Amino acid sequence: MKTTIAIDIGGTQMRAASYPLDDLEPLTINRISTHGVNLTPQERLTQLIKSVWPESGEVLSIGVAAPGPLNPKTGVLLSAPNIPEWKNFTLSKYIEAEFNTPTAAGNDANLAALGEWKFGAGKGHHHMIYLTISTGVGGGVIIDDRLLVGANGLAGELGHLTVSPDGPFCSCGQRGHLEAMASGPSIVRWVKEKLEDGVKSQIPRDEPLTPKLIAQAAQKGDELALGAFKRAGTFIGHAIADFLHIFNPTAIIIGGGVSQAGELILTPIKDAIPKYLFGPGYLEGLVILKAALGDDAGLMGALALSREMLHRQQS
Amino acid sequence: MKTTIAIDIGGTQMRAASYPLDDLEPLTINRISTHGVNLTPQERLTQLIKSVWPESGEVLSIGVAAPGPLNPKTGVLLSAPNIPEWKNFTLSKYIEAEFNTPTAAGNDANLAALGEWKFGAGKGHHHMIYLTISTGVGGGVIIDDRLLVGANGLAGELGHLTVSPDGPFCSCGQRGHLEAMASGPSIVRWVKEKLEDGVKSQIPRDEPLTPKLIAQAAQKGDELALGAFKRAGTFIGHAIADFLHIFNPTAIIIGGGVSQAGELILTPIKDAIPKYLFGPGYLEGLVILKAALGDDAGLMGALALSREMLHRQQS
Repeated sequence: MKTTIAIDIGGTQMRAASYPLDDLEPLTINRISTHGVNLTPQERLTQLIKSVWPESGEVLSIGVAAPGPLNPKTGVLLSAPNIPEWKNFTLSKYIEAEFNTPTAAGNDANLAALGEWKFGAGKGHHHMIYLTISTGVGGGVIIDDRLLVGANGLAGELGHLTVSPDGPFCSCGQRGHLEAMASGPSIVRWVKEKLEDGVKSQIPRDEPLTPKLIAQAAQKGDELALGAFKRAGTFIGHAIADFLHIFNPTAIIIGGGVSQAGELILTPIKDAIPKYLFGPGYLEGLVILKAALGDDAGLMGALALSREMLHRQQS
Repeated sequence: MKTTIAIDIGGTQMRAASYPLDDLEPLTINRISTHGVNLTPQERLTQLIKSVWPESGEVLSIGVAAPGPLNPKTGVLLSAPNIPEWKNFTLSKYIEAEFNTPTAAGNDANLAALGEWKFGAGKGHHHMIYLTISTGVGGGVIIDDRLLVGANGLAGELGHLTVSPDGPFCSCGQRGHLEAMASGPSIVRWVKEKLEDGVKSQIPRDEPLTPKLIAQAAQKGDELALGAFKRAGTFIGHAIADFLHIFNPTAIIIGGGVSQAGELILTPIKDAIPKYLFGPGYLEGLVILKAALGDDAGLMGALALSREMLHRQQS
């Protein structure tokens, strides 16, 4: 049987799966820790790929979603959070050499966008923006049925749009980026500050504050918790208005842990967008949807990438 | 001789030119006012096209740059500043019917980007951003050798990026857009406010204040005038940093009347960009250049569009 392999690499775990050419059900899927005692991360990666390699099958291509900035043309991963060993690591070439199989790699947020577009909530749209709101804020853009990657693969960093020029510092060191105003940690930080200021709230204080805890309080009508999602959603909505002016897509797909709060975050996002648009044309045919693939988006994007390679080889 | 025709329509003037297939020197070029006493703007357009039609020649295609939002797939111009007659005007179809010749149209800022990329300062780059700083701030983006137009042709409105959320109102009615902070009129308004506040300056007050007058004072070392360009350039540089994170291009091309101030505006732009980037990778191979085609950018973009049509027909 002819197959392809998809891999999703994270700072703590790596997953790989083998697929028939015409099915989304994996033949084998496996997960291991990125770091271990005896083997380096790349040795563990080799082990993982071997573990899903189909015994009696032919692997035509491999697609990899990697954390951190990656040049898809050269397959070089510039850096990866929590994998300090991989600085300027020639990821695609390493796998190609180990397995003698054509390999393509991409940034995980970009590939999650590709996955949602090919197999998830963005299916059928030619112009789509994907935002993942989680520990960070990542993004990916589909333009005319193609993933935006830019000259060196650094495009699509939608979480680093400046939305509040004098706002708090972002994880990247700059000020007031969308990630600094609307990520999970930034929602927690804002609530903490308000609690320290003496704002009344039913949010429990005997356990570490998380976006999930804040969402639970919001669902019970807690005003501070509701305000936290409204504030984050308004920043996201304002940023989306900017992205609409730039890209004029027909679908906005929102994924990541914070999107699990559902309407708590989606309603303020949808309320904010039209307030910041300069014309109603941008809303024509536009849908704003929760992502459909959850934690599988990156893996499914890697699958889409590995299958795209085959089409390019055939054409 | 086989030819194509390019047209650039503005609110006050329209220009058209006929070109051989392999030359940038027009066979005939003509200019008329958009409005007149007896004829409607579209009748004047017909007249203009006839005036450049090659007598003994065959016109294979027509390309049109139009002011205002336009859907390149349908050729419908939604609206045009200073041409109130053209609301939802089927511009491409009108010309096609009048001249029985395939016609394609695009937004003038987008086509100016196409012109600078094909024939001007952006030649040879695969990923390019064009910004025109003038009465308004317009833009256009080339991604992988293709013009970004979006689902309904409304993409590339880079002047409507929010750069100062609580800033003054933009011409579009929203607050703090790049256009509201860095266009010619916004530079003039800021200087006026400072003069009214009593800030000392050598800028002459016996004639209407213009960006050109402010540039002349800046060239003589006037601090207020220098500060006006530094402020506008810093906003533009900050916006460009956002665009680099989004598009990762290798060329930024700056055109429009305000760019005539040269280093007065380009230096603060170049100084600001790295301050707002979250990684040096975006500067790799990046050039920031003054536009090369001046007022011809839109017409040359229309020429590029008309020639692209031929390639599509042949392939």
